[in-house]
Amino acid sequence: MIKTDILIIGAGPTGLFTVFEAGLLKLKCHLIDALPQAGGQCAEIYPKKPIYDIPGFPEVLAGDLVDNLMEQIKSFEPGFTLGERAETIEKLEDGNFIVTTNRGTQHTAPVVAIAGGLGSFEPRRPPIQNISSFEDKGVAYIIRDPEVYRDKKVVIAGGGDSALDWSIFLANVASEVTLVHRRNEFRGALDSVEKVQELKNEGKIQLITPGEVTALFGSEQLYGLEVTKTDGESVYIETDHFIPLFGLAPKLGPIANWGLEIEKNAIKVDTFDYQTNVPGIYAIGDVNTYPGKLKLILCGFHEATLMCQSAYQRIFPDKKYVMKYTTVSGVSGFDGTNKQAPKPTIKAIV
Amino acid sequence: MIKTDILIIGAGPTGLFTVFEAGLLKLKCHLIDALPQAGGQCAEIYPKKPIYDIPGFPEVLAGDLVDNLMEQIKSFEPGFTLGERAETIEKLEDGNFIVTTNRGTQHTAPVVAIAGGLGSFEPRRPPIQNISSFEDKGVAYIIRDPEVYRDKKVVIAGGGDSALDWSIFLANVASEVTLVHRRNEFRGALDSVEKVQELKNEGKIQLITPGEVTALFGSEQLYGLEVTKTDGESVYIETDHFIPLFGLAPKLGPIANWGLEIEKNAIKVDTFDYQTNVPGIYAIGDVNTYPGKLKLILCGFHEATLMCQSAYQRIFPDKKYVMKYTTVSGVSGFDGTNKQAPKPTIKAIV
Ligand SMILES: Cc1cc2nc3c(=O)[nH]c(=O)nc-3n(C[C@H](O)[C@H](O)[C@H](O)COP(=O)(O)OP(=O)(O)OC[C@H]3O[C@@H](n4cnc5c(N)ncnc54)[C@H](O)[C@@H]3O)c2cc1C
Ligand SMILES: Cc1cc2nc3c(=O)[nH]c(=O)nc-3n(C[C@H](O)[C@H](O)[C@H](O)COP(=O)(O)OP(=O)(O)OC[C@H]3O[C@@H](n4cnc5c(N)ncnc54)[C@H](O)[C@@H]3O)c2cc1C
Repeated sequence: MIKTDILIIGAGPTGLFTVFEAGLLKLKCHLIDALPQAGGQCAEIYPKKPIYDIPGFPEVLAGDLVDNLMEQIKSFEPGFTLGERAETIEKLEDGNFIVTTNRGTQHTAPVVAIAGGLGSFEPRRPPIQNISSFEDKGVAYIIRDPEVYRDKKVVIAGGGDSALDWSIFLANVASEVTLVHRRNEFRGALDSVEKVQELKNEGKIQLITPGEVTALFGSEQLYGLEVTKTDGESVYIETDHFIPLFGLAPKLGPIANWGLEIEKNAIKVDTFDYQTNVPGIYAIGDVNTYPGKLKLILCGFHEATLMCQSAYQRIFPDKKYVMKYTTVSGVSGFDGTNKQAPKPTIKAIV
Repeated sequence: MIKTDILIIGAGPTGLFTVFEAGLLKLKCHLIDALPQAGGQCAEIYPKKPIYDIPGFPEVLAGDLVDNLMEQIKSFEPGFTLGERAETIEKLEDGNFIVTTNRGTQHTAPVVAIAGGLGSFEPRRPPIQNISSFEDKGVAYIIRDPEVYRDKKVVIAGGGDSALDWSIFLANVASEVTLVHRRNEFRGALDSVEKVQELKNEGKIQLITPGEVTALFGSEQLYGLEVTKTDGESVYIETDHFIPLFGLAPKLGPIANWGLEIEKNAIKVDTFDYQTNVPGIYAIGDVNTYPGKLKLILCGFHEATLMCQSAYQRIFPDKKYVMKYTTVSGVSGFDGTNKQAPKPTIKAIV
């Protein structure tokens, strides 16, 4: 059982910054995310695109913002349960919560902060009849560990950045890479499109366009699949892995059944402290709603900050926290580091 | 009469970021500040100190944050009335406001956003009997234009960074610089203390410590003053200018009499849109209060953003604004510039 002070569901920008604000209050955090990496929408959907409305950044790549947040919270040593979806929540008699993931990992904390954004990212599955029976047996929608594919035969499907970038990467890892796309045109960074063209010319990537994977074959493990070309012709390809990369779509998912008041697919909160109708469960960032709500990153930062004050009062009902400026009091990490503004010199001039 | 869409009182971080959010909605802004420069507390009190809790910045100097914000809003071409205090407000029959400064400059707008922080910065005046009669006649508490002091005799009083830094700067501009401080010890950046020591050794700065300016002499214009040393001895110094730099203290000031609901020296607002009890007047950043309020920079950013949406509805009651992500729609400045995420390439691989 993983124990922490604030259990954060969702490691997007809002969840990440919560670790910092909680850390200033000496509260420890642990984050759960369905994705294999931190960063939420910024990391999953548009890591290489610029954001222009983060205050103080005339321009920042979404991926760099995530890196900066990770750096900012590092000294507060957050724990992570990645690649798992928070599935159930239970409130104990002593007021603590237990949150269990789809893989059975259990977490307990006196405060739960749902920073689940638009929901947990779930892959868009292609409509192939028996695909679910091959999941974890050769079919994967997210690449967690590229080493799995070393010296194996791999078929990737898709026409966007993920399909292009993973085809390029795996061309040097797998023994054979086949890229299937239902159009001739790919849509992605110019670099990536050109690189795939080059690897195709060198014979390092097999290209089948326009076409679609229409059947999977195997018993215990996948061993082949059928690609049907737009002109009707179909081919059989021997393969160890099939990786359809049609993007991930967020779904509010299990959280919708946690007894929280939901409105327009978001969790209703009070703007005093962004608490839900269940005391001790807060909802911050894109996942919440209240009058005037805007689904913007900078709003999640504010909500996380106010929420942490309330969480502190919940955890320490008898203590009174007096807010201190970081500039004045510095930042003391849980790892023993201490950042501090240089003190002025006090010195006689003679 | 200066006309704009949103008239912002206070050019601290909150007021500055408002220009950006308003600009995204195609609303123009003009800012009034009592200080001669933008940046509020960050620029006036601690420009060279690091802030650690601006989201996405593990560390940023307060002065750099202000520079970044100025860069971020540049293309929205804000107007500035600096060095003037907003004194009175009047609501016209057509719903527009007129705000007049202590120097008589008039501004009109359909929306007023008070981002006045802890109030307008007013100098701490030393307790010298007739000092106010010499203001603008040789006595100044803020240096607006250093050229005023070229080849003049200047006496500076104070023991902190401002006194040190201006003594250093004016040592090469004025014909004579005398620095008076009531202790022997100065309190400031090590660099500055050492530099003053050096200039003193070279005879470029006269130092009188421990001592205080106790009387001013002049008729139309200041021509001399008396310094009383701690041991009781007093000296007469001929001078053209006396600049007491004892810091600036914020005072809510005239805004307190604008008919707004005030609580604990701050303006009460509704968290839906940070509007005050007077429709069309908003209060954002340190100057406002509501349940859960924290006087932090990141909170001002959020408040400014929600406020602009409401201001837009007020100005265009019939239009419906649909929020767009800057990453998706880019940022079109009023100066004709246009920032935009690079579009994906759509290209066949053959
Ligand atoms: C193309 C695009 C451009 C954008 N541009 C801008 C912009 O310019 N400015 C701006 O401010 N915003 C922009 N946004 C929106 C911005 O990305 C979001 O506001 C922000 O990501 C919200 O952060 P968050 O931390 O609240 O949620 P998210 O980033 O959505 O992160 C939520 C995380 O929670 C996880 N999660 C959810 N439920 C569970 C569960 N049950 N178990 C485990 N994990 C779970 C998800 O997997 C996800 O990683 C843009 C969004 C997109 C898609
Ligand atoms: C030493 C110190 C350290 C700090 N450290 C941190 C930190 O680490 N993190 C953090 O988030 N915050 C910190 N703060 C607080 C932070 O600086 C404020 O929250 C922030 O400056 C508020 O911004 P603002 O724009 O709302 O107001 P301000 O920065 O106060 O700006 C308000 C401006 O309005 C002007 N004004 C007011 N009334 C009038 C009028 N009638 N006419 C004309 N002009 C007027 C003032 O002159 C001023 O320039 C610190 C503050 C100090 C003093």
